[in-house]
Amino acid sequence: MMGKEKPAFWRTAISKVEPNKILVRGYDLAALLGEYSLGEIVHLVWQGELPTVEMGKLVEAMLVASCEHGLSAPSTDATRLVASCGVPLESAVAAGICALGDLHGGAIERCGKVLVDGVKTIREEGKGVQEVADMITNRHKEKKERLVGYGHPTHTDDPRTRKILQMAEEVGVSKIHVRLAKAIEATTERYYGKTLILNIDGAIAAVSMDMGFDWRVGKGFFIVGRAVGLVAHALEQMSNEGPYKSANWQEVEYLGTPPRDVPRRASKDNIV
Amino acid sequence: MMGKEKPAFWRTAISKVEPNKILVRGYDLAALLGEYSLGEIVHLVWQGELPTVEMGKLVEAMLVASCEHGLSAPSTDATRLVASCGVPLESAVAAGICALGDLHGGAIERCGKVLVDGVKTIREEGKGVQEVADMITNRHKEKKERLVGYGHPTHTDDPRTRKILQMAEEVGVSKIHVRLAKAIEATTERYYGKTLILNIDGAIAAVSMDMGFDWRVGKGFFIVGRAVGLVAHALEQMSNEGPYKSANWQEVEYLGTPPRDVPRRASKDNIV
Amino acid sequence: MMGKEKPAFWRTAISKVEPNKILVRGYDLAALLGEYSLGEIVHLVWQGELPTVEMGKLVEAMLVASCEHGLSAPSTDATRLVASCGVPLESAVAAGICALGDLHGGAIERCGKVLVDGVKTIREEGKGVQEVADMITNRHKEKKERLVGYGHPTHTDDPRTRKILQMAEEVGVSKIHVRLAKAIEATTERYYGKTLILNIDGAIAAVSMDMGFDWRVGKGFFIVGRAVGLVAHALEQMSNEGPYKSANWQEVEYLGTPPRDVPRRASKDNIV
Amino acid sequence: MMGKEKPAFWRTAISKVEPNKILVRGYDLAALLGEYSLGEIVHLVWQGELPTVEMGKLVEAMLVASCEHGLSAPSTDATRLVASCGVPLESAVAAGICALGDLHGGAIERCGKVLVDGVKTIREEGKGVQEVADMITNRHKEKKERLVGYGHPTHTDDPRTRKILQMAEEVGVSKIHVRLAKAIEATTERYYGKTLILNIDGAIAAVSMDMGFDWRVGKGFFIVGRAVGLVAHALEQMSNEGPYKSANWQEVEYLGTPPRDVPRRASKDNIV
Repeated sequence: MMGKEKPAFWRTAISKVEPNKILVRGYDLAALLGEYSLGEIVHLVWQGELPTVEMGKLVEAMLVASCEHGLSAPSTDATRLVASCGVPLESAVAAGICALGDLHGGAIERCGKVLVDGVKTIREEGKGVQEVADMITNRHKEKKERLVGYGHPTHTDDPRTRKILQMAEEVGVSKIHVRLAKAIEATTERYYGKTLILNIDGAIAAVSMDMGFDWRVGKGFFIVGRAVGLVAHALEQMSNEGPYKSANWQEVEYLGTPPRDVPRRASKDNIV
Repeated sequence: MMGKEKPAFWRTAISKVEPNKILVRGYDLAALLGEYSLGEIVHLVWQGELPTVEMGKLVEAMLVASCEHGLSAPSTDATRLVASCGVPLESAVAAGICALGDLHGGAIERCGKVLVDGVKTIREEGKGVQEVADMITNRHKEKKERLVGYGHPTHTDDPRTRKILQMAEEVGVSKIHVRLAKAIEATTERYYGKTLILNIDGAIAAVSMDMGFDWRVGKGFFIVGRAVGLVAHALEQMSNEGPYKSANWQEVEYLGTPPRDVPRRASKDNIV
Repeated sequence: MMGKEKPAFWRTAISKVEPNKILVRGYDLAALLGEYSLGEIVHLVWQGELPTVEMGKLVEAMLVASCEHGLSAPSTDATRLVASCGVPLESAVAAGICALGDLHGGAIERCGKVLVDGVKTIREEGKGVQEVADMITNRHKEKKERLVGYGHPTHTDDPRTRKILQMAEEVGVSKIHVRLAKAIEATTERYYGKTLILNIDGAIAAVSMDMGFDWRVGKGFFIVGRAVGLVAHALEQMSNEGPYKSANWQEVEYLGTPPRDVPRRASKDNIV
Repeated sequence: MMGKEKPAFWRTAISKVEPNKILVRGYDLAALLGEYSLGEIVHLVWQGELPTVEMGKLVEAMLVASCEHGLSAPSTDATRLVASCGVPLESAVAAGICALGDLHGGAIERCGKVLVDGVKTIREEGKGVQEVADMITNRHKEKKERLVGYGHPTHTDDPRTRKILQMAEEVGVSKIHVRLAKAIEATTERYYGKTLILNIDGAIAAVSMDMGFDWRVGKGFFIVGRAVGLVAHALEQMSNEGPYKSANWQEVEYLGTPPRDVPRRASKDNIV
């Protein structure tokens, strides 16, 4: 489309937009409407192809699993604080999405990377799944790095995880990344004195790797799913709860320098 | 749960989180997984109840309709620019979501409000749909306000709109808000000299009002749906395209003051 | 610079960037370094000209007044929540800036607009300052609209306001917008049964209007000033306080539907 | 302040807010107004103490140096795109701040860390500055890592850098971190075949490390300074330029799958 002298500013393989026509990964968007669910479209947009029916079910489940975790999630608290300040809905949701970092949903990416590297080791070096699982847990323990995708501040047995893994098993999606993820879980008691359960981030990481997703898109499942809950919390805050929500000054512990006088400046240095 | 002296800092009717249990609108989240699609969960989380099968189909279609519009959308351009700067995925998506304002997806809310007010007039004052449609277009024309939900910078006949309205008709969801929205469209040629088509924002507004959604949640469909496309564009930019994407200095037109000398300050006033 | 057929994608009067040369409003940025303070540069960049020494002092004071308000500000709480999630510094600050809406810093813009319109009435209709002040308070009271720029959730006599107004008086910047702002404050006891003090947003609005700033840039003082505090809070949270900060599940009051069973779907409708 | 059973939700050493009193690092904020510039307050808020006059000058210069770089910066482009969408000022600025990642301002942090580690090696292992500079450049070259803080996409001799370093020299702030930064620059021609100039990020990193700032706050200078430019660009876009700014569909190069038919689903699997 562009002349040779100057490449187009933007290039994309995701979609092609023309007047009255929107192609998504080659398909007419209008023709996808009503035929495919958003979960199936996630597979199409992120991987380039529509999923099988079973794969689509799993994507849908991973999105639903991520949709809401109440105020016990920094993203929700942030969204509601911002929503109390007289801003449009999307600002409040954007602030919540900023919170979906390495420690909040982001474990999907990092755990996915650990699993991908682990599976590479299994395949290239002919090691066993349990052996590699041991190597991984041992390495994290020694480097004092957090074993991402394992353990949860609220749940000791995450009901979302069990269901996702069971579904993946049933529809035949569960393969070597899931096996490795479970094998790592099995090692944790030995290394940490208690079982660190595979949490929802870890389960989504393992299953989505077995489905062929890029590990770097892992947080995406969480972002799209959790956006549903953040929208609801923003609206609830705006509609039913008070404005300008913040910590009461009496409840903040001050750890700083005691009161002191502002030094007067010599007049020549004074900025005013 | 809270004592009488001091109310809880947060209150919500959306979900209840306890160790190993997440209730969403009263339902066990783990039991919803695999049974309901994200579109149906959107209805549950935003309205409080699961939809009928037909309603669920429509929500799904509204989300899919919003999922992607290529670089011909400021949110996508913003996401890709930010994605080129060495940031995590969620930052790039959050920047794009900040763009979903009144002129980009936000028409859903504003058009929804116009329709809700119009339907109120129809019901309370016994006016006809066409009469109220005329009043609305006339009022916008006179006040020189943009008729939100109508017209599109790229499309003259939006294929997404037609499909959504057709689906709403088929499953019996299309009611008075949709009738009013179409009646307004029919008046535009008379007032503006050309037909301003009901665009995708307007169609989602009309259908979602007929489904009982709060007009203030309108942008939510767009936010959740478009998040799918934004994630893909962020990943594509990070993976395949160059870093630090910005306008080339040679392509920016400068309209400002010609070059001039910085005035020296009298030394006593100098800040340094 | 651009041919006639196609205008440049971007046009700006703010700066001109070329290799090894950055002009800001016509001045060489490198020559401004060390000569002018950031507050003076704010005046240059937003208004197009360098301020007088006195004006510069006032801008500096308005920025410093906005720099920090502890956890008793939704923006700070939001920044710290996000900072606890394993994100880069700028993400946490961006989330806090999203909170600087109409109810949090945004009053500068809205109060500025009220004052500009009021002064227009004074000038065009020959009315007195006190008369217009009465009209404004009365109109807000009758329409049940919040009198923006007046009252504060924490302070009954805002020390920042007094200092800013005193400085503006001393350097001769205080003119009709400040007079009108004070006149409005004087009417509040009569209308609301208690004095609603001119708060820091209102003071910045009044003074910056007297200095010739566009009312729409009002929030800008707050954004730039508060960014200083938000950076510090983000860093403190990341360095000294725990990760994944959120409300404890036991402290959230649940107002929603009691637990109920998930309805099984007829198999033909089942998405899975 | 809090009982022993339960620690306060928030703890901070930055400020203490009470009715009618705001202490910042122990000083009454109202008493700081008019006495100290925002740059000096940056030093106070981020380091805990007011700077000397000379240190304050340098902070001011580092903020001014960061204030604006036109459209040749992804953050500005992102801010203007978002500003064109009918959003409040702060949303547009927040989107721009999201762009200040590792490749855009973020080099301050990363370069600061490299210098801090380098100085530690000099001190602990008794090595010379030039020797450690060589080690650093060599290590980056071998690992094919970008030498952050060096080189610039637009400038071959950054005028801001020269001025900052000259000022640091004059006021006696320039010490071992600056020496090491310059020594690294001197090695680049040998390793890369051309000199990679110390850019503005690198200069701020070196000088702020010599001033005792935490390397993790490095991006903060850029965030606060650049906020000034972003506010101006948001306002200019909203005031003078058109709405809904995005790439024209004709200028986007499509690299994806050619048009294809949407596969019909067997009715039993159909979601609709």
